[in-house]
Amino acid sequence: MLNKKEIKKIRLNFPILYNKKFNNKIIYLDNASTTQKPKNLINSIKYYYYNYNSNINRYNNNLSNKTTILINKTRNYIKKFINAKSKNEIIFTKNTTESINLISNSLKFTKNNEIIITYLEHHSNILPWLKLKKIKKIKKINIININKKYNISLKDISKKLNKNTRLISITHISNVFGTILPIKNIVKTIKRFNKQILILLDGAQSIGHIPIDVQELNIDYFVFSAHKIYGPTGLGILYGKKKKLKILKKYQLGGNMVKDVNLKRRLYLKIPNKFEAGTPNISSIISFYSVLKYLNKINLYNIYLYEKKILDYIKYKLLKINKIILYGTDKINNSSILSFNIKNINSFDVGYILNNYGIYVRTGYHCAQPLFNKLNIKQGSIRISLGIYNNYNEIDKFIYYLLKIIN
Amino acid sequence: MLNKKEIKKIRLNFPILYNKKFNNKIIYLDNASTTQKPKNLINSIKYYYYNYNSNINRYNNNLSNKTTILINKTRNYIKKFINAKSKNEIIFTKNTTESINLISNSLKFTKNNEIIITYLEHHSNILPWLKLKKIKKIKKINIININKKYNISLKDISKKLNKNTRLISITHISNVFGTILPIKNIVKTIKRFNKQILILLDGAQSIGHIPIDVQELNIDYFVFSAHKIYGPTGLGILYGKKKKLKILKKYQLGGNMVKDVNLKRRLYLKIPNKFEAGTPNISSIISFYSVLKYLNKINLYNIYLYEKKILDYIKYKLLKINKIILYGTDKINNSSILSFNIKNINSFDVGYILNNYGIYVRTGYHCAQPLFNKLNIKQGSIRISLGIYNNYNEIDKFIYYLLKIIN
Repeated sequence: MLNKKEIKKIRLNFPILYNKKFNNKIIYLDNASTTQKPKNLINSIKYYYYNYNSNINRYNNNLSNKTTILINKTRNYIKKFINAKSKNEIIFTKNTTESINLISNSLKFTKNNEIIITYLEHHSNILPWLKLKKIKKIKKINIININKKYNISLKDISKKLNKNTRLISITHISNVFGTILPIKNIVKTIKRFNKQILILLDGAQSIGHIPIDVQELNIDYFVFSAHKIYGPTGLGILYGKKKKLKILKKYQLGGNMVKDVNLKRRLYLKIPNKFEAGTPNISSIISFYSVLKYLNKINLYNIYLYEKKILDYIKYKLLKINKIILYGTDKINNSSILSFNIKNINSFDVGYILNNYGIYVRTGYHCAQPLFNKLNIKQGSIRISLGIYNNYNEIDKFIYYLLKIIN
Repeated sequence: MLNKKEIKKIRLNFPILYNKKFNNKIIYLDNASTTQKPKNLINSIKYYYYNYNSNINRYNNNLSNKTTILINKTRNYIKKFINAKSKNEIIFTKNTTESINLISNSLKFTKNNEIIITYLEHHSNILPWLKLKKIKKIKKINIININKKYNISLKDISKKLNKNTRLISITHISNVFGTILPIKNIVKTIKRFNKQILILLDGAQSIGHIPIDVQELNIDYFVFSAHKIYGPTGLGILYGKKKKLKILKKYQLGGNMVKDVNLKRRLYLKIPNKFEAGTPNISSIISFYSVLKYLNKINLYNIYLYEKKILDYIKYKLLKINKIILYGTDKINNSSILSFNIKNINSFDVGYILNNYGIYVRTGYHCAQPLFNKLNIKQGSIRISLGIYNNYNEIDKFIYYLLKIIN
């Protein structure tokens, strides 16, 4: 478990937290939207541009060689970070949304195929699938309801499985409630029914908050964005089991993904390059390495335990306040995110006032409108989402100002 | 015209050129692959991460408001930079390749449609169109041959125009020969034949090297990458006339491009957001502003004149050397790029030796294999491509080492 001293040291690595212009008045509790960035990352971007900026894959050129090697170094580190079997199972995209769109676009379907998603998905894991139905590439989308614990029940998934089920695309952690879904058991249930059903896990909210082991989870695809794990903007990841990447047809076409071009015949590069058309986001990919290494040193399980403890502390404090409606009081399957409302006060206004005290939370529908419609929560919610730098002192201040708003 | 003193000042703004680890031995002549980055850019990225890093479009949050405003500030500046009519005509993508793929994917075609491209295109402006033919969305790709001046003749384009012609996708400047194509006249010829034919101009090699005025060019779409104009990696631009963006169907689907989602009906955001699914490359978009402002101050026409003068100087020097095969000796329609070979010496080897002297050129097929096949040049070429920081002194050193290789 991370102690006070270690957290203090971590905080010192995030310059925005100590930026004098905020007069020490920045309490950032919107980490599910994007995280703040450590010095390592910022220095690494600078170092790249100062020392070997160049395009990749020109093999008689020292700068380009270095750049190419470092791109693969990051690829290899991501492999280790999520326990993939090969660095070639790691594809660079621009964000989680693109990773999901790549799969929905490049996977073959038959017209009677069905797909399973859940009410806990954010828009990027809903819209690409709805489109497939709209253009009649598939027959049906089955949407799993949420249970009383703001989670997904295995039996609800079981009910939807049939011979036409092609894929389930499911979030690892709810971006609204922080619920950790029982992915291992979900996968077992599905694979027991039919090994061929594909499983896409949306890791946008789990990456950086709990340890990820794609072997243990036994999923086919895993997607996430670097900017939600203290990394740079403009970089998404798509992991896939080698066999399951091979069944995807090409997505975008252009330079860097083709080996030999003549007008009659093209010879494309293999996975992962096949899916990486054009000049990649070189500076983001290379600098992302420093972040992953840093987090690995802190240890993801320690991060999980620490954030969980802080989350439980917030829940404990919130539950003592009369007018608070807390969504999900389950203490076990939660991580780093929670949602609540204050009776008779609009969530947007709460966010606005907190913001004036330098406290950044998110309010509204969190890119998950179908969920709020389903639960009949009209005004969205106030969402707190934690990062490794948040501490008890910040939470106490947050609660103090929240009480001030209520009274 | 930029003078020696001004160029010296410009050079001081590019830290890699003065990096001590190279012992003043870096002569970067591979700007068509990617350019080096000015301090403005690097500081701007750092400033973003230190001062207001956050996700966009949360309207009760100062950090997010600032980020959202700055994203639009860049959008607006790009509008001015290329003389678009509205900032809403500027779409952020991940690179030129994605911009072209977006159009080839989202434009409606009929099965008898024809498309025109040229032998001067790089792979990213060939493969997406070949795919359309392969999947039988269109009937034919017409490829315009190059003339003796390594350019495109209007009459060759005229010959290919017919009632089925839907679109011409054409490069502004050859990435191999530096030939500037007569776009204004090409557009006139085409629009005189049929106003409805769409014109997509690939500005990957013209951006930053000649002034761009999309009104004067009268093109429908213009695409380029930030990293080729001294900007960050991972950012592409797609400009389109408002009407011509409206005819494009949605591309990737997800957060940030949808206004209201329920499972029966979706209300999408308008152009440009409709085409920008997921979290954008915030740090790159925001920092790109500082680069464009800097270049605007230097003035693009001045940059063009200066690079042209340096290019003419290299040509003059190369033509004096016996064993040099220079491709394209036309002195008029050229800019910043040239290709050559040395008789009986492999281009790859020349690149390798130059690299050991700290001179970075590119060798090979420059992502334009069909062109080299057509010209029957087996070994590719040695390509020099200039940036604003290159000077006569560097060219003299380059020529000196080239002579050393030849002798």
